[in-house]
Parts: sequence; C-alpha cells; structure tokens
Amino acid sequence: MFSKILIANRGEIAVRIIRAARELGVETVAVYSEADKDALHTMLADEAICIGPARSTESYLNMNAVLSAAVVTGAEAIHPGFGFLSENSKFATMCEEVGIKFIGPSGQVMDKMGDKINARAEMIKAQVPVIPGSDGEVFSAEDALAIAETIGYPVMLKASAGGGGKGIRKVERSEDLVSAFENASSEAQAAFGNGAMYIERVIYPARHIEVQILADQEGNVIHLGERDCSLQRNNQKVLEESPSIAIGKTLREKIGSAAVRAAQSVGYENAGTIEFLLDEATGEFYFMEMNTRVQVEHPVTEFVTGVDIVKEQIKIAAGQPLDVTQEEVVFRGHAIECRINAENPAFNFAPSPGKITNLYLPSGGVGLRVDSAVYPGYTIPPYYDSMIAKVIVHGENRFEALMKMQRALYEFEIDGVMTNVDFQLDLISDHRVVAGDYDTAYLMEHFLPEYQQD
Amino acid sequence: MFSKILIANRGEIAVRIIRAARELGVETVAVYSEADKDALHTMLADEAICIGPARSTESYLNMNAVLSAAVVTGAEAIHPGFGFLSENSKFATMCEEVGIKFIGPSGQVMDKMGDKINARAEMIKAQVPVIPGSDGEVFSAEDALAIAETIGYPVMLKASAGGGGKGIRKVERSEDLVSAFENASSEAQAAFGNGAMYIERVIYPARHIEVQILADQEGNVIHLGERDCSLQRNNQKVLEESPSIAIGKTLREKIGSAAVRAAQSVGYENAGTIEFLLDEATGEFYFMEMNTRVQVEHPVTEFVTGVDIVKEQIKIAAGQPLDVTQEEVVFRGHAIECRINAENPAFNFAPSPGKITNLYLPSGGVGLRVDSAVYPGYTIPPYYDSMIAKVIVHGENRFEALMKMQRALYEFEIDGVMTNVDFQLDLISDHRVVAGDYDTAYLMEHFLPEYQQD
Repeated sequence: MFSKILIANRGEIAVRIIRAARELGVETVAVYSEADKDALHTMLADEAICIGPARSTESYLNMNAVLSAAVVTGAEAIHPGFGFLSENSKFATMCEEVGIKFIGPSGQVMDKMGDKINARAEMIKAQVPVIPGSDGEVFSAEDALAIAETIGYPVMLKASAGGGGKGIRKVERSEDLVSAFENASSEAQAAFGNGAMYIERVIYPARHIEVQILADQEGNVIHLGERDCSLQRNNQKVLEESPSIAIGKTLREKIGSAAVRAAQSVGYENAGTIEFLLDEATGEFYFMEMNTRVQVEHPVTEFVTGVDIVKEQIKIAAGQPLDVTQEEVVFRGHAIECRINAENPAFNFAPSPGKITNLYLPSGGVGLRVDSAVYPGYTIPPYYDSMIAKVIVHGENRFEALMKMQRALYEFEIDGVMTNVDFQLDLISDHRVVAGDYDTAYLMEHFLPEYQQD
Repeated sequence: MFSKILIANRGEIAVRIIRAARELGVETVAVYSEADKDALHTMLADEAICIGPARSTESYLNMNAVLSAAVVTGAEAIHPGFGFLSENSKFATMCEEVGIKFIGPSGQVMDKMGDKINARAEMIKAQVPVIPGSDGEVFSAEDALAIAETIGYPVMLKASAGGGGKGIRKVERSEDLVSAFENASSEAQAAFGNGAMYIERVIYPARHIEVQILADQEGNVIHLGERDCSLQRNNQKVLEESPSIAIGKTLREKIGSAAVRAAQSVGYENAGTIEFLLDEATGEFYFMEMNTRVQVEHPVTEFVTGVDIVKEQIKIAAGQPLDVTQEEVVFRGHAIECRINAENPAFNFAPSPGKITNLYLPSGGVGLRVDSAVYPGYTIPPYYDSMIAKVIVHGENRFEALMKMQRALYEFEIDGVMTNVDFQLDLISDHRVVAGDYDTAYLMEHFLPEYQQD
C-alpha cells in the first residue's frame, strides 16, 4: 500500500478520498487554490499545498503545479477525483513519467475511450451494442443520407471534432438531411477546422443507465450493477438511483457483462463507468461513452453492494487484486442520491455562492449518508461547481428509500445561500418519479415546465 | 400503521425515533421539559408539548404528564426510548388502560423479567443457563454457606430487595462467608426492611455478551446476533461491537437460540435484549438480565444485519408481523460504537454541560453513522445524561471498522464543552482493544489506571 497520496481535487470528492485514504492508513496531501485555503479538504488532509490562484486553469488544472506538489511532498500516487484532470490523458502520462502512480487507467487507455469514434470502434470489436450509426467519419451529404436511410430517423449529426454543442443537428425526416448536414459541417469547419461528421440514430425515449466496473491490474474485471441517472437538467444529473426500476435480473446480467467486456477489451484498470442508453420498450441498450474515473453518483452503488469504490481505487492502484469476484457481489435494497447545489431554482438555477451562516446536515438512523465539504461559517467560492453536498439513502426497497430521502431533505437546513433542497423534495414527491416512470427528457420537458408554472 | 405516536424521551434516542417514525409516514409528538425547549427532538417532531420543569421526576418521569400529552394530541402509541419510563411496568399498564399502545412489552411481562429472582426462575424453566446460585431467597448464613460450597467461590451475596449497591458483598473464601452474610443481610434489613439475600457465583473473567431479539405479536421471535459490551466504566458501557471476537458460529447459534427461548418463554413482544456473561475459557454463558426496551448500542446490530430495530419496534406495536425469518437474517462485516459524552476524562469523567460553540460531526464515506441530538449553538443542560452522540462504524472486518472509527473520531470537533473523544481514540488504539482481548474488568482495572498515569 502507498504510504502517502496526493488528492488533485477539491470539494466533497476530495474529502471523500481523504477519508478513504485515512481509513487505509495512507497519509494525504491536499492541493488547494488561493480561494480554498479554508476549504474542508485543505483542513482535513495531513498536508496541504497551495497550487495557485482561484481560477482552476491556474490551480486545479495546472498540471505542473499539481505534479510539483506531489514530488515535493513525496506522494507516491495521485487521485484525480472527477472533473479537473481526472480524464486528462496527458496528465496521466506525465504522472507515469515521473514515477507517480495515477489512480485511474493509463493515459493510453484513456485516449482509446476518450475519442468517441474510436471508442465506438472498440465497442463494436468487444461486441458491446452501440447506437446504430456511421462507422467512422462521414464527409458528404450523400453518404450521410444513405446511412440515415439505413439506420432510420430521427438521427443526430455530430461534428467529429465536436464539443460545446457546435456542429450538432437533430434531423427528423430525410428531406431535411442534406441541408442540415451542410449547415452542421460548415459550422464544424469554421469552429474546429474540420468538417467531418458522424451520424447516430436518436434513441428516444431512453433511460440513462450506467454500469460501474472495477478492474484490477491482474485483469480481473467485475461490475457492481447499474445506476439510473435519467433525471437530468441540461445534461447534468440531478438524482440517481440503483437499481434501475427498468432493469430486471436478466437485463442486469446482460448489460453488466457488456460493461465488463467493454473494460476488458481495452485493458482497463481501476474504477470506471460505462454509460448506456436503454430503450425501455425493447430492452435494447446502446453504448454511449465510458467515464474513466470515479463518478459523483458512486455512493448509490456503494450502498447496494457494500463495496467502497474509492478504497478499491486506491487498492487497485497499489497493485492489490480485487477483494471480491463477480459471484460474491451481493445486491441489497435500493439507494437514491440527490445532489444538493448552491443555486436558485426560481432563477433558472443560477449559482448562489456565499457564506453559510447556519447549517444542519441530515444524519443518524439506518441507511443515510451525506457526503459534503461544507461546514457552518464556510464561504462557498464562486469559482467552482455549485454542488455542495450529496444526500444518499438506502432502504430495503425503493419506497423505503424514497421515504428516507424525504425525511433527510426535510431535516436539511442551510442559511446564507440558496439551494435546490426544496426542488429535490418536490422532485421525489412527483407522481412519476415516485412511480419510477421517467426518461432522460422527463425532468426538462415535463417536470420543470409544470414546476416553474407553480 | 399508527398515524401519530408520542416519543416519551429526549436526546439522541428521541431524535432517532422521530426519524424512524417519519420514514414510516407516522406523525410524531415530542414531549420536552422546560430545559429542553431548544432541544433537537423538540424542534424536529411535528408537534411538541412541554410536560414540566427541568427535573426529570417532574417531566420525563411524570407519567400523568406524558400520558396527558398523548391523549391531548391524539397519539395512538408511545415510544419510551431507553431510561426514563421505558422499563416502568406501571406506566406500560397505564397506557394500556387508556387505549394507547405502549411500544414495548406489556407491564405484566416487564414485571416478570424486572424481578431478578423471578427472571432467574423463568430462565431455568426455559432452559436458559443461569449463573449458578440460590434458587430463590436465602434467609440464614448456614443455608448460604451450604449453597456457596456447592456452587464454588468466589460468590456474590446480593440483597433480594436490593438496588444502589446496598447489601452486596463479594466473598472469596468460605471462612469469610458467615460474617459477610450477616453484615450484608443487616444492611439490607436496614435499607429495604428486608434481610433476604440471594447468592451467585462470581463469573470472572467474563465478557458482557448481549443478544438482540425481536418478537412480534404473533409469537414469532428472532435474534439479530450478539453485541460485546465488555468495555465498561462503573458498569456504564463505553464501546460496543458486533460480532464479538469471542463468539464463533456454533456459540452464536447456541446463545442466540437461548435468547429466543428466553423471550418466547415469557410471551415477550417487541425488541428486547438478553444480557449474558460469557466465560471465554469454557464457552459457558449465563443469563444476567433482560432489558425490555431498545438499547443505546442497537445501531451496531443494525449495521451488521441491515434491520432497522426502531422501525421494527413501531411496526411490531402496530401489529405487523416480522419482515424476516431467522434464516433470512444475514450478518455482514463488523460494527463498533463509541459513546461520546460531554465529560472530562481528566477529572474523573465529571459531566461537562454548557454551550457548544463550534461543532463538526464526522460524516461521509461508507459505513459511518452518527446519532446525535446536538447542533452548533446548542446548550447541553446539566440535568440529564451526559451522552451527546454515538459514533458507529461498519467495516468488512474488525480491522477496517477500527480504522474507520479512528478516522471518524479524528474528524470530531467540538468546542465549548469537554468530551471523551480523545479518550475513545486512545481506547481504540490500545493494543488489547485492537486485539479484541478484553473482559468486563479490563477498562477499569488495566486500561484506566495506566491511562490516568500518563
């Protein structure tokens, strides 16, 4: 086991990692920006090093600063958390080059799964179902039209070099395809200097189902079941649960083994998540992407399996084999996570940084966990993500979990900043959420419009 | 299910019960003394009624006041928690008489198990091993001597009508027995107007092992395994764990079924605990007493079994059958609880009431739970028990649980009052506690003398 690791992150995930490391008897080094000198992760770690100004490009994203902090403190490994440098293959490779273990997959594997067209090809090789679409880049409207006719409408045209929503078009009918292609391709050419596109069928309605996997250095890969993360606002997950109400035992095994195959095929190491879209009507699922890091919503899986994913990450990176085999993974009960953000739901969820003057986090009783990095008197800085806490509950069944979440959110008290606690309370009381009857569009297209009218 | 219950208690257990009731969709009524108007249980409940002055004899022990509050608010049941009226058979009977369900056994069953000589006779009938001793009261030194010779020294002489340590003598050798009996008996005569005694062998060294049972109204009784509560100071438990390191599978089944027989034999209903002394060398265990209520240390059992004992109490009282059979109870991992008291370990553990100016309770991660009724700015009143929080951890094994407890206690921050947090940190770091090698005398006779020298 390592004797000391550096945590290249902030907020609740940094605190979560510090706690896991401490429970493993591993010393911790926090890095912090000038805005985070009073942050909980800075205070809780055994050592803390300032790596730059508030702006994350100059601190948490500053690879040289983070790496120097690790070298100076003698950290043997770096845990990147999520966001920031966690999926930066260059950083992973830099760590490797200076002999510091990156707690995650190698930069090479990250690259394989980071490029969407490449990842798709890998998945086809591994016999993991992918969204029907073009196998590679498409350069002409005529080719696009031919492919679209094969896979069926509606289709999504996406810039191969894309990002930030540029060069994307949804096409409902064949007569619209050629002009849409030309528009999107020119936009992509202008934005990225590359007009190449790819085409995918639109899977809708769909559920966002993701499978947690763990892979050790000896090639053992297991999955820890699925999470249903269909409740999203602007592609940001709001509430996650495990198991998914849409998944039975047979489908769980099928999608679980597809996820294991996906990880095995690229020689994956450490914790990862394979995201799928599930067509609930047909039971067909399609690979979307792989997240090569721990996820925000990992605690729901921890509750239903009893496996400590962050500890496993550290143990895997230290070369230890997995503690459990697939057969030994036992799923118990139902877990739900609500993300608590400092934001104003009545003002289009605008971030609400500021000083927390009063705070009572729900606690106590069976099956409740709050992961957070805030404390009374703490000032939430305006520079980073607005998520300040995760409330996670575990019940023997989904109904008990929902009741527990209601109890927990009801207890949540915070003064000084606005939060989405009441919004979450309303969301878990919504009849379709209570019934588990929702898809990726439900929150934005149904719940929110009604909610905002009230 | 009830629609509303009253909680006849205060502190963390009152809060624990309010939370369980809320998760069951049951409304709650808190009762509070004048000293507790800002207490968490008063604020968290749906309704709160002041039942008298700070002194518990005039409030929490005032049966008429509590019962009136239940009647006035329309509560259908009363949960007594632990301490206060929880083992008061008269109160249980009074509840019954006014048609309010007492969440616990009937007054009659309580009486059966509350009288020590009576309980012993019941246990012999149920073939539950009891401490070798007199079967009933002993009135003369000669009879006492004869019994002592049979059961073997050392023996304990105890006043039949005893309490508060009066009329108790430990006798090491036969030549000391007659005079000790006469002294103790006169003392008992003077104190209680009754010189009758009983005699028991002293089981030493011994472990305090208790078994949690649940019994529904249909006569189904299950046990949820044992707790080792051998670490005690002045007969007050300090740290509890489950499972006991001294108990293997065979002994667990044996002691578990003895506990089930004990409960069945008296027609027990609701949650209860059978306390045993275990002679680790021989594997023999002996019935000590039954606690006819929920225990402070119930969360360690909840962690290893996943059963919510307080919810089960409410469900049983409402007439629901047990959810699980004995075969379905699955034991997983290892749990430890440390009681956190507002007290000064350096000054003979004198209570340290006062205002909490700053508070950070450990939280987050897998397998940690803090049950507490304190919050920043709360003033701990001097009138009641000094326990302010329970830190409970759950690991895959005992070592992981100990590491987790260390991490949790390390995070615990409280200003304004003294606590035993550092004492507990030292206790869980003690080599014999780490090894699990302790008995009921260890803390007082070995750990504490050394600790106080440092």
